[in-house]
Amino acid sequence: MALRVAVAGASGYAGGEVLRLLMGHSQVQIGAVTGNSSAGQPLGAVQPHLVPLAERMLEATTPEALAGHDVVFLALPHGQSAAVAERLGDGTLIVDCGADFRLKRAADWQRFYGSAHAGTWPYGLPELPGGRAALRGARRIAVPGCYPTAVSLALFPAYAAGLAEPEAVVVAASGTSGAGKAPKPHLLGSEVMGSMSPYGVGGGHRHTPEMAQNLSAAAGRPVTVSFTPTLAPMPRGILATCSAKATPGVTAQSLRSAYEKALRDEPFVRLLPDGQWPSTAAVHGSNSALLQVAYDEAADRIIVISAIDNLTKGTAGGAVQSMNVALGLPEELGLSTIGIAP
Amino acid sequence: MALRVAVAGASGYAGGEVLRLLMGHSQVQIGAVTGNSSAGQPLGAVQPHLVPLAERMLEATTPEALAGHDVVFLALPHGQSAAVAERLGDGTLIVDCGADFRLKRAADWQRFYGSAHAGTWPYGLPELPGGRAALRGARRIAVPGCYPTAVSLALFPAYAAGLAEPEAVVVAASGTSGAGKAPKPHLLGSEVMGSMSPYGVGGGHRHTPEMAQNLSAAAGRPVTVSFTPTLAPMPRGILATCSAKATPGVTAQSLRSAYEKALRDEPFVRLLPDGQWPSTAAVHGSNSALLQVAYDEAADRIIVISAIDNLTKGTAGGAVQSMNVALGLPEELGLSTIGIAP
Amino acid sequence: MALRVAVAGASGYAGGEVLRLLMGHSQVQIGAVTGNSSAGQPLGAVQPHLVPLAERMLEATTPEALAGHDVVFLALPHGQSAAVAERLGDGTLIVDCGADFRLKRAADWQRFYGSAHAGTWPYGLPELPGGRAALRGARRIAVPGCYPTAVSLALFPAYAAGLAEPEAVVVAASGTSGAGKAPKPHLLGSEVMGSMSPYGVGGGHRHTPEMAQNLSAAAGRPVTVSFTPTLAPMPRGILATCSAKATPGVTAQSLRSAYEKALRDEPFVRLLPDGQWPSTAAVHGSNSALLQVAYDEAADRIIVISAIDNLTKGTAGGAVQSMNVALGLPEELGLSTIGIAP
Amino acid sequence: MALRVAVAGASGYAGGEVLRLLMGHSQVQIGAVTGNSSAGQPLGAVQPHLVPLAERMLEATTPEALAGHDVVFLALPHGQSAAVAERLGDGTLIVDCGADFRLKRAADWQRFYGSAHAGTWPYGLPELPGGRAALRGARRIAVPGCYPTAVSLALFPAYAAGLAEPEAVVVAASGTSGAGKAPKPHLLGSEVMGSMSPYGVGGGHRHTPEMAQNLSAAAGRPVTVSFTPTLAPMPRGILATCSAKATPGVTAQSLRSAYEKALRDEPFVRLLPDGQWPSTAAVHGSNSALLQVAYDEAADRIIVISAIDNLTKGTAGGAVQSMNVALGLPEELGLSTIGIAP
Repeated sequence: MALRVAVAGASGYAGGEVLRLLMGHSQVQIGAVTGNSSAGQPLGAVQPHLVPLAERMLEATTPEALAGHDVVFLALPHGQSAAVAERLGDGTLIVDCGADFRLKRAADWQRFYGSAHAGTWPYGLPELPGGRAALRGARRIAVPGCYPTAVSLALFPAYAAGLAEPEAVVVAASGTSGAGKAPKPHLLGSEVMGSMSPYGVGGGHRHTPEMAQNLSAAAGRPVTVSFTPTLAPMPRGILATCSAKATPGVTAQSLRSAYEKALRDEPFVRLLPDGQWPSTAAVHGSNSALLQVAYDEAADRIIVISAIDNLTKGTAGGAVQSMNVALGLPEELGLSTIGIAP
Repeated sequence: MALRVAVAGASGYAGGEVLRLLMGHSQVQIGAVTGNSSAGQPLGAVQPHLVPLAERMLEATTPEALAGHDVVFLALPHGQSAAVAERLGDGTLIVDCGADFRLKRAADWQRFYGSAHAGTWPYGLPELPGGRAALRGARRIAVPGCYPTAVSLALFPAYAAGLAEPEAVVVAASGTSGAGKAPKPHLLGSEVMGSMSPYGVGGGHRHTPEMAQNLSAAAGRPVTVSFTPTLAPMPRGILATCSAKATPGVTAQSLRSAYEKALRDEPFVRLLPDGQWPSTAAVHGSNSALLQVAYDEAADRIIVISAIDNLTKGTAGGAVQSMNVALGLPEELGLSTIGIAP
Repeated sequence: MALRVAVAGASGYAGGEVLRLLMGHSQVQIGAVTGNSSAGQPLGAVQPHLVPLAERMLEATTPEALAGHDVVFLALPHGQSAAVAERLGDGTLIVDCGADFRLKRAADWQRFYGSAHAGTWPYGLPELPGGRAALRGARRIAVPGCYPTAVSLALFPAYAAGLAEPEAVVVAASGTSGAGKAPKPHLLGSEVMGSMSPYGVGGGHRHTPEMAQNLSAAAGRPVTVSFTPTLAPMPRGILATCSAKATPGVTAQSLRSAYEKALRDEPFVRLLPDGQWPSTAAVHGSNSALLQVAYDEAADRIIVISAIDNLTKGTAGGAVQSMNVALGLPEELGLSTIGIAP
Repeated sequence: MALRVAVAGASGYAGGEVLRLLMGHSQVQIGAVTGNSSAGQPLGAVQPHLVPLAERMLEATTPEALAGHDVVFLALPHGQSAAVAERLGDGTLIVDCGADFRLKRAADWQRFYGSAHAGTWPYGLPELPGGRAALRGARRIAVPGCYPTAVSLALFPAYAAGLAEPEAVVVAASGTSGAGKAPKPHLLGSEVMGSMSPYGVGGGHRHTPEMAQNLSAAAGRPVTVSFTPTLAPMPRGILATCSAKATPGVTAQSLRSAYEKALRDEPFVRLLPDGQWPSTAAVHGSNSALLQVAYDEAADRIIVISAIDNLTKGTAGGAVQSMNVALGLPEELGLSTIGIAP
């Protein structure tokens, strides 16, 4: 007996990836697919890679179109989810890929988004301490941001085990799909190919408070994050280089052991064998997060590198994984740990 | 009751892609995975994207290692398949991703490969006229080359319908994985990123006689192919631009109708709606071939563009599809028409 | 005594490249730099690579701003050059990088551009037979399109020497800068990286009649061109694969000799040594065109490959070269044959 | 009266870039160009972008070949420069692009390179405090590593002004040309395109002690550097994200002022206007370093981003600049601040 699932915002990158995964999910039947300016077009015109759905027509994103589904995925510009959610009722599981319901503190929302805080929903990162418990049975899910997924998976074991001082420094490179499909000059292929550039430097990126929220919860005390995102010349993938001063007594061995222990039973997070480093190529299109750790003795810092696909584990895959947990389905349904390489 | 399947040459790009697809094939259990210089290493060290098999050890490619399997995929340098096949016996279905058994005329083989012709096996392109019949029940399969797959799918309908004069002109761009994983200076990232370059110009590429063989068979008369391959700055994908002088009376409409008719029931070949053009991005990691046709009135030529993933439909996907046909399994098992984009 | 030179459309890719070259031209002093929506901004905000001009302010493109210069380069959307030219008078040399004055036949213009034909100016491809003579002393120059530059240089020697039948088949790959800087969804980095795709297939591309015009002139009889442009995942460069049926008696040697003879004294066109093939990487940022020829005996076709930088030799470099010829300056002033590689 | 200049290692990426710049240097005449395995080939076969030198033959790298030049550039694998230098004598200015003579402390060399320390030569980063004085009249120059160039330029003003605590955290992305031209599997285009990956994590990269040496000198006290390099899918460029805890009292304004003051007269280092961020595209092929600074109040850290071309300012450009200083020539001869973009 299949779940009937709608996807709002199906013409964008996040929505397209949700559809791609749902098409391989054995318990799902795809219902409405909606867009905004793309409404009225066949899906094949805007998502030509989704061949089996090429002739499905995009409807406008309205409460009517989204009604009558068991699950609704929202892949909308931030600020639009609350209104949609209100109209759908508690009978529908809503999985919001947007930012609206991720943050706990209204002040953080207001500072980084400049509008009224809509509220807080159960947070869709099952791997965090208490993460699965918070999702089981949930009717609303806030899917984490792509950077916070990469960074929280990388650093929560260190903070949970007390191995890192509460000042994290993160530099992450993201593929351009993280910036969305709306055409802007700096996102043109001519501009990004062959070029690396930073943005939101100095604490201005909206994902910063979300990372701090997750790491502070893991540490049991406030953690600050100095976060610098960079745009890399690739369509997908995040490589996050995360470090922090080690707490007294940390060794390479104790660091590795803590990660082995924390991640042992995780189906989607893999600590690589010693000496092997993550690459975004290895997680292309997969729901895997690949991790490696190091202890830099001279600088007395722990360094954790994580690689994810920003659209899969970082958005749509995390969303489907959380849906599975919320509905009591096997967590891995519709998801793969196998990347497409080279 | 699963088939036990071995993969020889599992550390290369073709072998890795065969494994990736077989891991998602419901009737397959993966047996031996073998390599040459990589023997003794865990698969995760050379194919880090194949996470579920990361700890499987690569064995040496020997008759002993490959014995006792229902199916053996060979992804070896050309010239090595015959010796392996001899040792395996007719009880094993051998699917050869190499070139050794593709050509029918020994003279073609000798001219382009310079060694003795090993023979001819049933040809693994089910879409060709008579293609499926030739594969059903086969115990040996010669998987087509990646370029011949793209070009034969693009042009066989025109030749079968008598719409094209027997002199085809093909210019194709391929991703670098088509050139393999053995490190050579001109394949370095530094050399290929930001650059397009041709090779094997003037009829020298080894895939030329294979294309001519397929198109001649479809046309029922000899067809020559002027083929220019180019190396494109992308890891995967082939975009083939194929044209030929139109035969008298051809119109845009008659051309399109012939293609619609020829491809109507093909599960993996899609003629795009009028006005939409194929891209390699849309078939990344999928077994789809996307086609579009045009009639250039001023030049009186038909033009057909095809896009495939050289490693999937062009190699490993075609191989699995042909295995399915040979064994009487549903042709689409383990294969997807959905690409990974963007 | 320096020439005072203005650049209209200085915020786009063509205008930026014109400026880059003029900054290294010993006889030029840069005057007004103008834009449209970018007017009022410092040049450094839109062309951050032009460091020495970073603080120059972009003015609006008006006759007043462009008045009082010895030379004015126009890098404007097509259809706008005639109006500007009218206001400038014959005292100013106008070098138009746009399409408006390239075509000789009004019917061609109307068919491909859909508006009234503005006229025909001396054509800025000095290498063509009679090319330099037509430019010397000119006060108006129509800079060729990027594709016609690559294709005309590749094929004019064959047609001039009577070695090719009058039906050329051209498939060319272009970097994305050829499509300009106006943001459109299909030009996003996310879309183009890792992807090849065709456009304007079947004779629809506006550069087709320009190629036919040049090759017909070289051949002394009408030549048709079947032209398929493709978008390649790189910011710059054109690789053109050009072929035609050989005329009777052509050999590999006679073909090569004809090209050696035709190109012997050209400062910017180089026929590569036998066995070496052009790549766009080798001409990145340079005014060189690299060529290689082959005779495909089995298909009885001549094949010529050319590589240029679409923004340099294909636009701005060709423009500066033609300016030099028009003004009687040394043809190579401000231009380099050295590419930036890797 | 031109200087006669030889380049040893002219077939590699560093050597090729040295040649490219020297060809545009008005006081230089290019003498011997030497290689190892490439000896006996024309330069055009291995450096096809250096068109004017295409027919020059590569000689073997011997003392005889390098004798009789005013300046010799060495672009050799590390460990080979000392032997060559010994044979050349003090009459020749030797500019070593290798690592052999960069480090001051023998213990650092031994730990990171595992061989005996060859010595220390004047260091070729004129922008450092006292940098030009150390180079004037020098007969031996150790060209800095590419990463140390990017990082030292980014952080020396902060350390010199006492604005940063002595524990720097650096994450840098480099184009693949930094890894050289020797073919290795992980440097294949198929592997690097679409992928970001780290290497030498945890303090293991050989450039770490060189950065610490420069920053400690600027600070007047020991500075540690936690350095993580990453390989980015582009041929050229380094983007370095550098940060450190701010010293008490630092503000965004005091930070910016210190940089403005320190860099005011530098011909090749540009602090971008507030709000604009560096990209590697903007310095492609140029000798510019583009910088921007930020103060992250929440994390109390200063962040400095620098972008250079690893082969130009990071290697060959820095080498030519230092040669100019050593010989008393205008520092900017043969060098440009203009990048090639897009």
